[in-house]
Amino acid sequence: MNRYSLNQATTKHWPLEDVVAASAKANLDWIGLWREPVQEYGVEKAARLVAESGLRVSSLCRGGFFTAATADERAAAIADNRRALEEAAALGTDTLVLVSGGLPEGSRDLEGARAMVRDGLAELAPYAGELGVRLAIEPLHPMFCSDRCVVSSLGGALDIAEQFPASQVGVVVDAYHVWWDADVLRQIARAGSRICSYQVCDWIVPLPSDVLLGRGMMGDGSIDLRALRTACEDAGYTGPIEVEIFNAELWAQPGQEVFDTALARYREHVA
Amino acid sequence: MNRYSLNQATTKHWPLEDVVAASAKANLDWIGLWREPVQEYGVEKAARLVAESGLRVSSLCRGGFFTAATADERAAAIADNRRALEEAAALGTDTLVLVSGGLPEGSRDLEGARAMVRDGLAELAPYAGELGVRLAIEPLHPMFCSDRCVVSSLGGALDIAEQFPASQVGVVVDAYHVWWDADVLRQIARAGSRICSYQVCDWIVPLPSDVLLGRGMMGDGSIDLRALRTACEDAGYTGPIEVEIFNAELWAQPGQEVFDTALARYREHVA
Repeated sequence: MNRYSLNQATTKHWPLEDVVAASAKANLDWIGLWREPVQEYGVEKAARLVAESGLRVSSLCRGGFFTAATADERAAAIADNRRALEEAAALGTDTLVLVSGGLPEGSRDLEGARAMVRDGLAELAPYAGELGVRLAIEPLHPMFCSDRCVVSSLGGALDIAEQFPASQVGVVVDAYHVWWDADVLRQIARAGSRICSYQVCDWIVPLPSDVLLGRGMMGDGSIDLRALRTACEDAGYTGPIEVEIFNAELWAQPGQEVFDTALARYREHVA
Repeated sequence: MNRYSLNQATTKHWPLEDVVAASAKANLDWIGLWREPVQEYGVEKAARLVAESGLRVSSLCRGGFFTAATADERAAAIADNRRALEEAAALGTDTLVLVSGGLPEGSRDLEGARAMVRDGLAELAPYAGELGVRLAIEPLHPMFCSDRCVVSSLGGALDIAEQFPASQVGVVVDAYHVWWDADVLRQIARAGSRICSYQVCDWIVPLPSDVLLGRGMMGDGSIDLRALRTACEDAGYTGPIEVEIFNAELWAQPGQEVFDTALARYREHVA
C-alpha cells in the first residue's frame, strides 16, 4: 500500500469531499481526519464517503486534554474521549491521536498533570481495546508544555504508554515535535510496536506569532525526515505516514495546490 | 553569601555602573555580566568597578557558537572563545556560559553539529583549565535547536560535558530551558559538580513574535523554580543563582524598578 496520507488539517478550509476526491484521484490509500470537520459533515456519512472512495482512515485527530483543575472537568474530558474512540471506530481507523493537555490553570505541578494523563488513559484503555482503537499519545514540542501538552518527549510518552497494553495505548512520532531530541532514535527503537503513526512536516524559523501555526512544508526546514522514517521502519512501523501542516499561508492557498505540493515534497524528502 | 545575582541582560539598557551600584547598595554579593556591554565599558575597568563595589562576577555570558559550515568559521569561533575565556578570567569569574550554536546553514545533520560542539570544547578545554574558568554548556529550549543551540536538554549537555574533566567543562541549569523535561530532576542529580550556574526566570504564554524575548518574571509563569533550586542543591550546587530575563517590556522599564521587582520575586518564588 502507498503509505502517504494527507491529514485534512493541512488543507483546513478545503471541504472534506474535495480532499477525499483528490486523495482517491491521486491513487492514495489513506487519509487522515480531524474530529470537528468530520462531526460537521456527519461521522457515518464521512465513513461511507471515505470507504466508497477506496480510502482508509489513517488516524483521527484528536482526543486528550486530560489535565484539568477539577474532577468534573476531568470526567467531562473522559466522556468526550469515549465519543472520540467511538467516532474513530465508526471511521474504521485503529488510531485516535491524543494531545494530552497542559498545566491546569495556575498550576506548576508537571508531575501531577502527567499523573492526570495516566489516570485518564487508565479509564479509557479497556474501552479502546474493546473498540479496537489505540489511544496514541502524541508528545508535543516542549514549547507547548504549559498550555497544550505536558508530555514533551517521546521518552516521556513511552514512560506513560508502557503502563498499558500495547494493543490499547501507543505513541505518535510527529517529526515536528521530536526532531530536536538527541535521544529520539533510541526512543523510536524503544517504542517498537507502540508506534501508531509517523507524521511529517518541517521545522522552520522564525516562528510565527501564533506558534501553533509554525509548521513548514517538508523540505523547507531543518528536519531529516527520511532518517526518522527509517528509524520508525527499523522499529517495525510500516503503516501510513501522515502529512500534517498547520500554516496560515498554506491554508490561504487553493486546496489542490497544497495537495500537489505536499505529495511532491513527500516523495522528495520523506519516501 | 547571598546567592542572588542579577544578570545585567535583565536590565539591558541600564548602564553597567548603575546595575553594579544598585547591586552593591542592596548588599548583594554577585553580579552576572554580558560580554558586549563589558567590552564596551572596558574589561579591566569593569573588573575594577565590580571588585571595588565588593561584588563578584557569577558568570560571563557568553561564548559558544561552535557550529559553522566551514573550518575557517569554526576556527574563528574558537579564537573568539579564547578571548571570552580571557575576559572571564580578567573579571574573576570561574564560569563562561556557552550557547553552542544551531545547525549550519542548509544542514539537517544534528549529530554532525553536536560533534562540532564537542570538537570546539576539545580545543578550548585545556586553556580553560589553565585560566581556571569552566566552559559551561547551556542547553537551550528545543525551540532554539535549529538556529541557536543544538544542545536541547540537560542530558544532552551532560553527554558532551562528561567527555571532559569536570574542572574544565560543566553545564548551566537555566530553568527556562529545561523545566518541561520529565527527566530534568534525574539529570540535575547526574550533573552534580558539573553544575556551574542555576539561572531563573519564568515560562509565560503566549510567546512573543520574537521568542528570544519571551521570558517572564519569576512568579508570572509555569515553572516550579524552588523545586529546581532544591534539586540543584541536592546535587551539590550552592553557588550563585542568576536572574536572567530577556523581555522587551521589562527592558522598557526603569532599571531600578526591574531590579527591585526581580529581587522581591526571587525571595518569593526561588529562595
